[in-house]
Amino acid sequence: MAVRYELIKVCKQSGARLGRLHTPHGTFETPMFMPVGTQATVKTMSPEELKEIGSGVILANTYHLYLRPGHEVVREAGGLHRFMNWNRGILTDSGGFQVFSLSTLRKITEEGVSFRSHISGEPLFLSPEKSIEVQNALGADIIMAFDECPPFPAEREYVRASLERTTRWAERCLRAHRRPEDQALFGIVQGGMYRDLREQSAAQLVAMDFPGYAVGGLSVGEPKELMYEILSHTTPLLPAGKPRYLMGVGSPDALIEGVIRGIDMFDCVLPTRIARNGTTMTSQGRLVVRNARYARDFSPLDPECDCYTCRHYTRAYIRHLIKADETFGLRLTTYHNLYFLTRLMERVREAIREDRLLDFRDQFFAKYYGGDQVKAF
Amino acid sequence: MAVRYELIKVCKQSGARLGRLHTPHGTFETPMFMPVGTQATVKTMSPEELKEIGSGVILANTYHLYLRPGHEVVREAGGLHRFMNWNRGILTDSGGFQVFSLSTLRKITEEGVSFRSHISGEPLFLSPEKSIEVQNALGADIIMAFDECPPFPAEREYVRASLERTTRWAERCLRAHRRPEDQALFGIVQGGMYRDLREQSAAQLVAMDFPGYAVGGLSVGEPKELMYEILSHTTPLLPAGKPRYLMGVGSPDALIEGVIRGIDMFDCVLPTRIARNGTTMTSQGRLVVRNARYARDFSPLDPECDCYTCRHYTRAYIRHLIKADETFGLRLTTYHNLYFLTRLMERVREAIREDRLLDFRDQFFAKYYGGDQVKAF
Ligand SMILES: [Zn+2]
Ligand SMILES: [Zn+2]
Repeated sequence: MAVRYELIKVCKQSGARLGRLHTPHGTFETPMFMPVGTQATVKTMSPEELKEIGSGVILANTYHLYLRPGHEVVREAGGLHRFMNWNRGILTDSGGFQVFSLSTLRKITEEGVSFRSHISGEPLFLSPEKSIEVQNALGADIIMAFDECPPFPAEREYVRASLERTTRWAERCLRAHRRPEDQALFGIVQGGMYRDLREQSAAQLVAMDFPGYAVGGLSVGEPKELMYEILSHTTPLLPAGKPRYLMGVGSPDALIEGVIRGIDMFDCVLPTRIARNGTTMTSQGRLVVRNARYARDFSPLDPECDCYTCRHYTRAYIRHLIKADETFGLRLTTYHNLYFLTRLMERVREAIREDRLLDFRDQFFAKYYGGDQVKAF
Repeated sequence: MAVRYELIKVCKQSGARLGRLHTPHGTFETPMFMPVGTQATVKTMSPEELKEIGSGVILANTYHLYLRPGHEVVREAGGLHRFMNWNRGILTDSGGFQVFSLSTLRKITEEGVSFRSHISGEPLFLSPEKSIEVQNALGADIIMAFDECPPFPAEREYVRASLERTTRWAERCLRAHRRPEDQALFGIVQGGMYRDLREQSAAQLVAMDFPGYAVGGLSVGEPKELMYEILSHTTPLLPAGKPRYLMGVGSPDALIEGVIRGIDMFDCVLPTRIARNGTTMTSQGRLVVRNARYARDFSPLDPECDCYTCRHYTRAYIRHLIKADETFGLRLTTYHNLYFLTRLMERVREAIREDRLLDFRDQFFAKYYGGDQVKAF
């Protein structure tokens, strides 16, 4: 099996899981946060910097790489790891989410989705078989089943029909997969905000015995309380011996709440995207370093952080770089934000090990929401 | 004295100089190339990367830093070295060149230049005294006299009047300079393409005993042969015990020809600017890596280069990044180009040491102009 999950312990206070993910490119502790490298690069970062930060698995987007440079180029390069000089873990998504969110003139049928490239306008078609073919060419350690992610809100009947098609697509993905020995195919549980549909989806996918499971269709615009409720209902439906991945979640509060509900893996563009807008995550909450109030502030982004950025640069310098459109400023904020989340997950793992994750959450939030800076993401 | 030049030897074959520049932030071998960090950052690069490349002194632009973030902010930060986390040498220009090339509505008088900011439109005034005040606040190891750089072509009378004012401005700069112990003020020889005016300018400046001299007013659009002729005429007019800096020159051929004519220091935006356009310097000449012909080329930018970029990444990957607007691509090309010029200057120094710089020039050019790639810059 390409990827194996090892459950180390369950936090007595919270029920959260501490584990290890064994992949063809190394073993990484969970719960973990995976930075997003959409186009075979985590924007502004080098692979060496990601290692220094402590990233284990990064995510790349099948849709983008299929369009540019094309999966055949990546296959010829020897796969994504060699192409981008990254010898730790990689996860590719199925492309489904981007087809629905980025492409134009899309049409869904039982066979798949026809759409037009958002770059060239060229007509294209993605199906379970095609998605797996592309992902087999890219060669990530973890690949995802091709699914449909319904919007929020969505009618029950629409969600039911969609999840049943997602299940049929998952079966086709399993059959199409040519590299199960070195690429683990994860199934994606859908079902929207309907508990019984989540049960139906989970039961069908668990019966197919995937090496790992994602919870999809959350963080799509619903209130956070609803997301947590559905998550609490869904994760117990998944086998304890397999890794659980919550897609598209990266705010500090949702990471901690997700771990408490049994999640092992997260990905999100949030830390890298906001960094490029001059917004950073700190122990005292959100800090928008491009604001004028930091023009003569010679303290680090986060006085409690010991990352490269915070050890060497001031808010005033970083603000200057961002105002002056200098990409080094975005390197510095991106580095810090990824370090902040990676370090947060380390502290979460320590807390699980010591059966005190609920205490940690309360302490973290008291400071995170208690400072004088802008709060939420 | 803030900066001291030590002449180690003169190449018996070419007359080129091998030396050392002792500065308050380290000693660096000459001839050297100085990367340009206009806004207190060498675009896309970290200080650590510049050290890895082997850069000793970098250049920052007074005009840009005066406008943004303002020299008072940099002074409060503890000077440019601390502001930008660079503990090797820094040289700031006087701001004169940018006032003439970037600002609008400028008016030159004996007192100085009034102009409008190219960012805010705000009316501003730069004089010899103001330029030195700003440069004293920035705190670079080497600062430059405020001069006027006449365009090419220019009438003899215009150039004569301009150089005489530049001489008077140089005297005012000397008087205004508040930190001669830790900042070396260099004079700038002008005189356009007129040999006798170059003699007049050099004689007047040498009489003022600056710790170093720049040759200004070259590389402003004149034919390269004319630049070399004027340079050959000008450098012998300068004292052998002081460093000589040729401003705004960075193509491989002009660097070598400049060294042969007795130059010790160069700066230019060329390697970093073309890198951001997907153009690289290689041992076989210019290589435009964004071209379609490199889409499936899995060889390094330059097979003879052992830089970070060439050791880990292919032309196909770098092209993909640049086509996809990923800044990491610009990091990779910038790194390579700076490494290429830094390594070129190392080889030039070796050749001087071994009295074979003319042979080295011929061998370098045979390969540089002999490949099948596009040639000139
Ligand atoms: Zn930090
Ligand atoms: Zn190279």
